[in-house]
Formats: sequence, C-alpha cells, structure tokens
Amino acid sequence: MGSMYGRLFRVATFGESHGPAVGVIVEGAPAGMQLTAKHIQDELDKRRPGLNVYVSQRTEDDAVEILSGVVDERTIGSPIAMIVRNTGQRSGDYKDIAHLFRPGHADYTYFKKYGIAPQPGGGRASGRETVGRVAAGAIAKRILEEHLGAQVAAYTIQIGSVKAKEIHADYAGKHPLRCADPSCAEAMEAEVKRVAAAGDSIGGVVEIIATGVPAGLGDPVFEKLDALLAAALMSIGGVKGVEFGEGFGAVRMKGSEHNDQMGTTGFLSNHAGGILGGISTGQPIVMRTAVKPTASIAIHQKTIDVSGRSADISVKGRHDPCLCPRIAAVAEAMTAIVLADAWLVHNATTGIRK
Amino acid sequence: MGSMYGRLFRVATFGESHGPAVGVIVEGAPAGMQLTAKHIQDELDKRRPGLNVYVSQRTEDDAVEILSGVVDERTIGSPIAMIVRNTGQRSGDYKDIAHLFRPGHADYTYFKKYGIAPQPGGGRASGRETVGRVAAGAIAKRILEEHLGAQVAAYTIQIGSVKAKEIHADYAGKHPLRCADPSCAEAMEAEVKRVAAAGDSIGGVVEIIATGVPAGLGDPVFEKLDALLAAALMSIGGVKGVEFGEGFGAVRMKGSEHNDQMGTTGFLSNHAGGILGGISTGQPIVMRTAVKPTASIAIHQKTIDVSGRSADISVKGRHDPCLCPRIAAVAEAMTAIVLADAWLVHNATTGIRK
Amino acid sequence: MGSMYGRLFRVATFGESHGPAVGVIVEGAPAGMQLTAKHIQDELDKRRPGLNVYVSQRTEDDAVEILSGVVDERTIGSPIAMIVRNTGQRSGDYKDIAHLFRPGHADYTYFKKYGIAPQPGGGRASGRETVGRVAAGAIAKRILEEHLGAQVAAYTIQIGSVKAKEIHADYAGKHPLRCADPSCAEAMEAEVKRVAAAGDSIGGVVEIIATGVPAGLGDPVFEKLDALLAAALMSIGGVKGVEFGEGFGAVRMKGSEHNDQMGTTGFLSNHAGGILGGISTGQPIVMRTAVKPTASIAIHQKTIDVSGRSADISVKGRHDPCLCPRIAAVAEAMTAIVLADAWLVHNATTGIRK
Amino acid sequence: MGSMYGRLFRVATFGESHGPAVGVIVEGAPAGMQLTAKHIQDELDKRRPGLNVYVSQRTEDDAVEILSGVVDERTIGSPIAMIVRNTGQRSGDYKDIAHLFRPGHADYTYFKKYGIAPQPGGGRASGRETVGRVAAGAIAKRILEEHLGAQVAAYTIQIGSVKAKEIHADYAGKHPLRCADPSCAEAMEAEVKRVAAAGDSIGGVVEIIATGVPAGLGDPVFEKLDALLAAALMSIGGVKGVEFGEGFGAVRMKGSEHNDQMGTTGFLSNHAGGILGGISTGQPIVMRTAVKPTASIAIHQKTIDVSGRSADISVKGRHDPCLCPRIAAVAEAMTAIVLADAWLVHNATTGIRK
Repeated sequence: MGSMYGRLFRVATFGESHGPAVGVIVEGAPAGMQLTAKHIQDELDKRRPGLNVYVSQRTEDDAVEILSGVVDERTIGSPIAMIVRNTGQRSGDYKDIAHLFRPGHADYTYFKKYGIAPQPGGGRASGRETVGRVAAGAIAKRILEEHLGAQVAAYTIQIGSVKAKEIHADYAGKHPLRCADPSCAEAMEAEVKRVAAAGDSIGGVVEIIATGVPAGLGDPVFEKLDALLAAALMSIGGVKGVEFGEGFGAVRMKGSEHNDQMGTTGFLSNHAGGILGGISTGQPIVMRTAVKPTASIAIHQKTIDVSGRSADISVKGRHDPCLCPRIAAVAEAMTAIVLADAWLVHNATTGIRK
Repeated sequence: MGSMYGRLFRVATFGESHGPAVGVIVEGAPAGMQLTAKHIQDELDKRRPGLNVYVSQRTEDDAVEILSGVVDERTIGSPIAMIVRNTGQRSGDYKDIAHLFRPGHADYTYFKKYGIAPQPGGGRASGRETVGRVAAGAIAKRILEEHLGAQVAAYTIQIGSVKAKEIHADYAGKHPLRCADPSCAEAMEAEVKRVAAAGDSIGGVVEIIATGVPAGLGDPVFEKLDALLAAALMSIGGVKGVEFGEGFGAVRMKGSEHNDQMGTTGFLSNHAGGILGGISTGQPIVMRTAVKPTASIAIHQKTIDVSGRSADISVKGRHDPCLCPRIAAVAEAMTAIVLADAWLVHNATTGIRK
Repeated sequence: MGSMYGRLFRVATFGESHGPAVGVIVEGAPAGMQLTAKHIQDELDKRRPGLNVYVSQRTEDDAVEILSGVVDERTIGSPIAMIVRNTGQRSGDYKDIAHLFRPGHADYTYFKKYGIAPQPGGGRASGRETVGRVAAGAIAKRILEEHLGAQVAAYTIQIGSVKAKEIHADYAGKHPLRCADPSCAEAMEAEVKRVAAAGDSIGGVVEIIATGVPAGLGDPVFEKLDALLAAALMSIGGVKGVEFGEGFGAVRMKGSEHNDQMGTTGFLSNHAGGILGGISTGQPIVMRTAVKPTASIAIHQKTIDVSGRSADISVKGRHDPCLCPRIAAVAEAMTAIVLADAWLVHNATTGIRK
Repeated sequence: MGSMYGRLFRVATFGESHGPAVGVIVEGAPAGMQLTAKHIQDELDKRRPGLNVYVSQRTEDDAVEILSGVVDERTIGSPIAMIVRNTGQRSGDYKDIAHLFRPGHADYTYFKKYGIAPQPGGGRASGRETVGRVAAGAIAKRILEEHLGAQVAAYTIQIGSVKAKEIHADYAGKHPLRCADPSCAEAMEAEVKRVAAAGDSIGGVVEIIATGVPAGLGDPVFEKLDALLAAALMSIGGVKGVEFGEGFGAVRMKGSEHNDQMGTTGFLSNHAGGILGGISTGQPIVMRTAVKPTASIAIHQKTIDVSGRSADISVKGRHDPCLCPRIAAVAEAMTAIVLADAWLVHNATTGIRK
C-alpha cells in the first residue's frame, strides 16, 4: 500500500535502494504530447548525488528507460512505464549495522509493520525511491508547460540558522545546495561543511513556487488544492512541516493584515499563497517545507537491535549532510504531479456549464 | 468533487450554510459497536458557537439525527447517515454584500470555478460544512477508543503573540478559547477582545496530540501517515501550515539533536512526533497547525464585485475573532478519521504474515 | 464498505428498509444545471411499488427532499444530498421469521460478515436501498440529456419462457411489467399471475439501451466501459448475468459474422453492442441482464435459524412475483451513473491533445 | 486511465504489443510470503501461444524479471514490479493495414479517443497487455493458496455449438483448448480446425470456479463481490457476457426452484453460484463468460481507413482462431486478483467486532 497516487493523473512507483531497479508507471498524460527520455533524464539529473561535495558521493547513472506509452516521441494515451537500474550500491556499508535500528530512520517502524529486518540502504524507505517520483514529475511538468504554460521551481532558503534574504530561482538551479540567494550561499556552504566535518547533519527550509497556474484548480473540503499539496510534500522523506503563503507567520497577523484585498487588476497582495478555500486564485502558489537534518550521521548514537538489545551505532557511508537540495528536486516533482492531476480533474467540468 | 474521503473508513459530507441541512455518510465502522446520537452530539457541541463571547453568537441547535446504519444503539456495518438541519441562518446579514468577493474568503475562487455568485454565509465554503466532519469524527473516535484505547485532543497553544508555556489538555476542554495553559489564558482572552473591539481578528496555533496509537499505522511513499494527516488538517478552512514533532524547529537542529535514540525501554525522545518513514512509532503523534486570522472582519477593505468593479466592504455579522477553538474541534475529528482509516487498512494485512 | 461509487461523478447511498430514511449524496454534477425535486421524483416514481397488481402493494410515498447542492433550481457544484423518509414499513411481517435465513436472500451472508441477525425487510440488502441509486441516476440522466442529448431506456424482454419479439420502448414505459412488446404483454401478465397464485415467483430478462452516447467514452484495461457497466448492473440485487450486443449468442458465431464491418457512413452492424476495446463506438450501447426469480415466496422452504437449527419458512408479505419492472428502473439509473462518470473522465483529456 | 486496479490489493499494468516491454506493479501482498520468479513464470506459461496448432504460433519467451518487493524469495511488503521484454514481434505483419480500422478491434475507438492511428498488433489493446494481469494474478493466487487454501480454475466448456457435458478441470489444464470434457475434446478441436481452415474464427464459453473461498467476502451495494468479478471478467478483451450460478438459465426458473434451501449441514444446492447479496456464501463461486470469435480473420471484410475511405481488409498473421484457452488463463488471474482484494478488505474489519 501507499505507492499509488492520483485521481486522473495517476502514478505508481516501485523499487528498493538495493534491488534490481526503481521506477514508475504514469497514466493520464494526454495523448499526442511530445515526450523523450531526455525530458525525464534532465529532471532525474537534478536529484543525482555525486555532483558536489555537499551531497553524497555515490555515483548513480540513473539512466532512464521508457518501456511503454510513447511512440515516435509522442504519448499515445497508454501508461508510461519508466525504469532506472540500480548500479553502484554498496551493501557492504550496511553490513555491520544490519540488525540495528538507525535512529531517525524507518527501520524500526518497517520492522513493526512488516516484520522485516532493516534493509540495506533503507530498502523502500530509501531516498532512492524518489527516482520514480521525479520521473513522473517530469511528465507532469511537460503537461503543465505545454498546456498551461505553468512552471514549478524549488530552492533552499534556509540551512540551519542561515537564511536567504532574496530569492533568485535561476541562481538556485546552478548552486550545489540549491541556495536561492547568492549573498548567503557561502555562509550556507560553510554551515554544511562544518556539520559534515563533525560527522553531523543539519536541517533547512525548501521553498516551492508554482507560477502560471490558472484560477479554479482544486476542490472543496477534502480535496482542497493545499490539502493535496501538503500531503504530497509531507510524503517526501525528511519533510516535517509544510506551510502556504504566510504560513506560521499568519499566527501573529490580524485579519486586516492577512486578507488579500482586491482591485480592478486583481489581488493587491498574496498572503494566502495563491489558494483560497482550497482553490487556486491564479496568483503564484507559494509553499515552504521544513526539512529535518539527515538521520544518517557518523556521530555515535544509542539504539537497539531487532532483538531489543542495547547497541551503539555510527552510520558510515556517503550521506548528504543536508537534504535540502535533493528534497527540492522531489518537491518540484510532487508539486507538478498534484497540479497536473488537479488540472485534469478541473477539465472534467470546466467549460461545460450550462 | 472533494467531499468524499477515505480508503476503508469513508466519509462523504454535504451541505451549505444556508441550505436546508448539513450532514455526512460514514462507512467502514465495524459492526456491533455501540453508537448513540449522544456520542455524536457531544462532539458537535464542541464546535458550537454561541457558548461564549469569543466565538460567534449565532444560536445553533445542531441537533443530529441518525438516519441509518445503527439499530438498537449498535452499528450494523451499513453506512451511517447523519443530518443536522440548518436553523437560525440570517441571510439578511449577507444581502448588502451579495455581489462582492469578501477578502480572504473563497467567494472569488468559487466564482471562477463554478460560475456562481458569492453564497450567503459562504455556502459550501462555510465553516458550517465542518458539522459533517465532526459527526464523522465522533464515530472515528469511538472506533479508536473502543478498539485501540487511543485518544485525540486538540487545544490552542498560541493566539497572536501570546504563547502557552505548559499544556493542560483538560483545562483546554473547558476554556472558551480552548487555551491549554491556565497561566496565559487571561492574556489570550485579552488579545482576542482587543482585536474584536477594533473590528479585526487574530491568528493562532492549534496543537493536536494522539495518544495510544500503536506502532505500524501508515504506509510508505504517498500514503504516509503524516502525509494523510497533513492533508486532513490542511483541508480545514483557515489552516495555513502543519508541522509534526519539532516541525519547523527542526530546521536549525543537527541530526545528533533531532534523531530519537533508542534504549531497551523504547525511544528516548520524540522529536519526530510519533511518525518515522510515514509509519507510527507507538509514541504520541504530535502536530501543530497555523491558523490564519478570521477573514470576516468589520474593518473596511478594498474588493471588487462579480462584474469586476471596485468596492469597499465591511463584513458585518457574528464572526469569531479567532478561529482556534472551532478549528480545534474539527482538527480532532479529522485526526480521528485519518487514524481510523489507517487502522482499518493496517488490519488488512497485520497478523496474517507467514 | 461498498456504498460509494465513481471516479468523478460520485455517489454515496445509505439506508435500510426499516430505518428512518434512505438517500444519497451525489457529487460531480456540473454547476449551473437546472435541477428540481420533480426531476428526481419522476424517476423515483418509476420504481414505486403499489401501482399495479404485479409489483408489491406496499404504499410508498417516496417523496424526495433535496438537502443541498441546489440553489434556485440550479446546481452550484456542491454535493447534492437527497433523502426519502421510510413510511409504511410493517416490521410485523417479519416478526415470525426474524431468526431464520430466508433462502435466496442475503440474511445468511450478512450474518457471517457482520454478525447481525436477519433485519426486517432485509435491512441494507433490501430493494429499498435502490431509492438512492435511482435518485442519483436522475441527476446522471439530466447530465446526459443536457450535455450529450443521450438517453437511457430499460424494459422487460422476457419473463419465464415468454419472450418479446419486437421492442417498443415507449410501450414499455406505460406497462406495469415494463414489457416492451405489446404482442406478448398479455402472455407475460398471465405468466406472472400464474406463479403468483401458486405463491411462487419467476425470472426474466431486462434489456437496457443507451442512445446518443458519443464515441470515445471508457478506458482501456480495467476501466473498460463495458466492465464498469457490467459491475453497475450486476450490483443490482437479483441480477445474475450481464451481456453486451450479441452476448452469449456470440459463442456460436464466427468472426466473419460477429465483426461489425465499416462503410463510409460508419458501422454496418452493431453486434458488439456499441463498445469496442472498452470504448464506446458511438452506436447504441445494448445490454441485457438475467433477472432471477424473486427470493421471497410463500411456498414453504427448508432453512436454518441463526443457531443452525432446521426450520421451515414461508415468506409472507407484499413481494413482487417478478423483479423485472423494478430492476429496469434501477438498471436505467446505474447505466446513467456509469455513463455520466465516463463522460466526465473523458472530458478531462479530450480536446486538449496537442 | 484504466490500467490501475484494486482497493488494497492494487495492480498497475503497462505495455503495448510492439513496445519494449509489458509488465505490472502489484502492491498489497502481505510481507513474508514466499514468492519466486517461477511462481510467476508458471502462470505466464499458461497464456503463452506457440504451444499448439490452435493458438497463434508466435514464439514468446515471456521470461519474467522481478524488479522489486522480493528479497531472498520472500515478499517484504513493498510494491512488486515485474517486466517481460517483448521479443519476436513482427511489425511487418501490420504494415499493409496500418491505416485501416480492423473490424471487431479497438482501432477505431482508440482513434476517436486518443487521435492515434492503429498501432501494430493493437498496441495497448493487444492481448499482449494481459501478461501483466497474469503476473499479478500469480501473486494473488499465492495469497489465496497460502492464506485461505483457495483455488481458482478456468476451462473451456463450449466452442461454437460443441458443449462439454462433464467438467474435468484437471484434464482442461493439459488440453490445448483447455477443454474440460475429454468426451468432446475431439469435436472442439475439429470445430476450431474447420473455421481456421476457412480463414475464420469461432466463439466459446469459459467457466471459472473458485473453491475454498470463505463466507463473508464482498460488500453490499456497489462493491458486491459478483459486481467486482463481473467487471474483472468483462475487462478481458473478447468477453461479451458474464453470468453467475444459473445465470441466464435463472430467467426461466421459479423462486421455488432457484432459491438455495438450507439444512443443518449448510446449503442444499448452489444455484446462486456462491454469492448472495454480493457476499460469498462459502460455496464454490461459479461463473461463465461468453467469448466472442477472434476479430482478426483472413476472410476479406469491409472497413474504412483513418481518412474515412472505404477499404477491403484481410488480417494476416498468427492469430488464434478461438480465444477461449488464452482467456481462461487471464480469467483465472482476474478472479484471483478480485478475491485477494476482497479478502484484504474483509480482513480490515473481520474479527474486530465488539
């Protein structure tokens, strides 16, 4: 359970970090849309480690193969299956700790739920699972671009105590930490290096913005657009909070400050973050996620083994000291998936009112 | 779309603020469980306005009628339909502003989506819609209590800048603002009175805690327990952010601080908020929601009418200056609904492993 | 479980035969569509017993009340809740047999599934449950008519060994048995009277035809239009078989006979019954259902009680000796519901191909 | 749309006949269950053509690869992805008719729905699509066997006018036409050879029986077990009708004949086919499907091309003159999938009644 998503734009992912492959089936993409392996690969490359000193040094080829649903670089309306073979896993890294529950990981809860011992690399709970999401997100992005001209971007706006003051989304795309503010990029890098040197890790904030989304997407009550987006972002491993527009900042605001007033040219502000009553307003959708510090750290911690005996653990291996840049890539994908689905649902009744 | 929820514990709500009735159908409740109108009514009374000066003074009887699924005070496994007649609505309050989009409300987005003019009281987007959720939540709570011994509580921990220092859930149940801390209750009340007197409103934070939830609930990837809970809480009108455990506080933490280490008696801390890898750990599930200031305020604001013409609006009527106490009641219901559904899904495979 | 249906046109029914009310929530109907209680009532009246000697003589008012989703006789895009109060039930009829499993009924399977004793009138398994379906079907029919100009009709083409030779759908609408062929109406009536006089019942065939359905509705693999229609029709109590076009007659045919060849004006025949590869062809959709003889009969039968002891049972009361006319009304509703849902799903991607 | 199925036992298939691969993702299989590629392969081999003169001579290796969800031959609770590479397709066979709608095929409806020209081999509408279903069905069968001791068997009981008189399921498993009756096997073979020699094809009836299914599976109203089974069987290409127990034979029966009376040892007959009120009775579930004659025939037929021009078509290639043996394999799979799903749903509430 849990690996299938969507109402009309449907996604089913599979794969463990140390199994033969990871991948995804996507259905609901309109027929006749241009789609090549390169569209997918470009997005997958964004989540690839090994590009810099901040994210883990494991080499992943992540070469995607499209197995169905595309003929002559055009979608035909059938499910699009994509796989990426796992190569370069090193189970050896996990051998010494194979019977220990790693603190901050899903080892213990998977053991309680499925009765299985901790899997090398986390098995299904590995970040490797997000390959399928990003591949699906690449298709969702194609739909948003081609049919709506909408764009999704995610970037790091805080690491530890270092906060971005300005947002330059273009800059973020090129920066190894996806830092959105050139003026604090160096400080962020220093912070990450500092904790990494100590065998530790650090949290951060990733902001996601979707522009060009028309008014009217989303549905009342349980399928509010912000509810679906919150679930999608919270479903990314390491995310511990989600907020829209002013978010937790709205707590101290008065109605006269928070309400977005309107003029003849539209809204005069966007404190709501582009969604009112669960339906898009046509303004940019603005979200932020709280990212916890990476659970895998070299620093020694107390834990227990599968038999309940006390143990001491130090998680070796090539782990990112800060999850933000990887989460940004997945957050873009999840946002695009939710928006594509909401748009298809919206199409079902829009323009047919009598 | 949007008013049906759940995989095995399924909920379908209906009703507008100024229509004949609001209500809900619930299916998936185990047969043979004791259930009376009083179980439902007690929960509905928690969300009732008119009990104090802080929440709106409109008198609602909210007398629930059970139409099906219960025979001789026992569930029989069939859908349980419940309705509450709308009485005491005063459409007159909305007459003067019937063609204006109220800032901070869903009037504009509903107009764009459905082509309908602003409805008296907000129509489907009214807080009145939550009656069905709370009635369904009452059944979910019965399931959690009877089958798991689990409890859900929600309370106000911040209003404006006034923050609770300690949590006394029992106290909150009796306080008109659901304030959890007796030592700051007076300050919270003063803050609410102050903004109300100015024709304004104020935001706050509601915390929700679920205790007695066993380890193993929730599913990987898209149906993570925290993802489903985040969607459920974000689906409540006025909620602009959700966080788990340390939440946004995790941003500044190191892995060595945030990871919950384990000893032979279990976890040594609960920074994660009771969920790891999307699956419950057996510890209390701890969540907080950011509540925006009430959108309906008497202070004059700029807006436009359905024809796009500029206008000035002052929303009269009996509106809560702070949504926290009402949202707490609905947050409890939504949390219970998600947990009951997750528990049923969990039952499907638990204990049948070979 | 089981009482909610649909992907975009969603239906949730509730109610037992001897509870306070039966009803339904419908969501997905486009906003702005004209809808009055009369639209619903006209369809409900079709399934009403008491109109003739063949169907049971119990007087049902079946007066529908619309509780939400309609303002000034127009849909507003919100869920439409409808209830019909139960009146005139006579639990007394069931008192003597309250602990016996009625042969051919769901008493035994409900007992095994839910642990509940046989309910008066069958409880949720009563034909009374179909009130909600027919009310929902009335809305689906409105959508099909208003947006597609499509129509659904169902009629009896066989009772026992008496078969219709010609189809006159108009005639069927006025005939108490919904017999489609005036030339055999008398023989059908005689057959029903004959078995009724003997305290027995008889089976039959109901044919359903949907005209004006455009090509392209339905989806490959699991959501084929005929698969969804088959489920919808089989979900009606008393239906034991479903076939499309030539149906079981195709068994003896050769490909050269069964294939529908094409000319410049379209298909040259309709052996397929309007669906190819699970997608509508634009021709009439033609289906037939096998209807079993009514299970409730006065003739004495062997059964057991809830403790497993042998017993003799004769089911008294006002039961239809032939289910066909009632099933025709429900079959129309279910067909319309499936088609409305398929049309909404189809809208999501149609016309947006690039 | 359409390629994902299930509530708790979920299946997502993909793949076209002439694309790189076909396959499936399965989720919901209990963790800890033994599962090897051989379990899958054995079922896939049942649907393989090339084994005899009756089914098409194309050589398919159909070697399955398990990509995830299984570690050391045990399920771990994660999605199980399986692929089969397509080899040996001969697009050349379709070159001459690439712009023609083949009568009896989905070419025309796919063209109307997706705007795509007829695909070689039928693309997604090819029988090749069923590889994924059969692989998923193999897992469902494992669940039924290991947890319930239940079995599913399907066999041919009629081809053209040749009908089986007795059922020997074991014999059917070894017979190339899956004929269940040794006494008429020769006549069935002769019938198939006769139509094949004429460049034609012939229909038939496949019966499916599920034994060992406990009472209580299935849900009232829309998710009746027979409704779900009917949809599952009707979703198989070539099936034009489905019936349960007496099926269309019930039409001529009286209630006193059709009702299954009960004694202290249980039901005294099984006219209902193992399902009452949509819930399994504990008796064998008995179903039959009407199979149309193969659409691809060498005999010349009238058709049109994608531009609407008249044409003459003769479909060359290695096509089965009778679909029954292949459909039997897929019918077993679909039945097992529905029963596994129903069993998981049933587990959610069974045994937890208070």
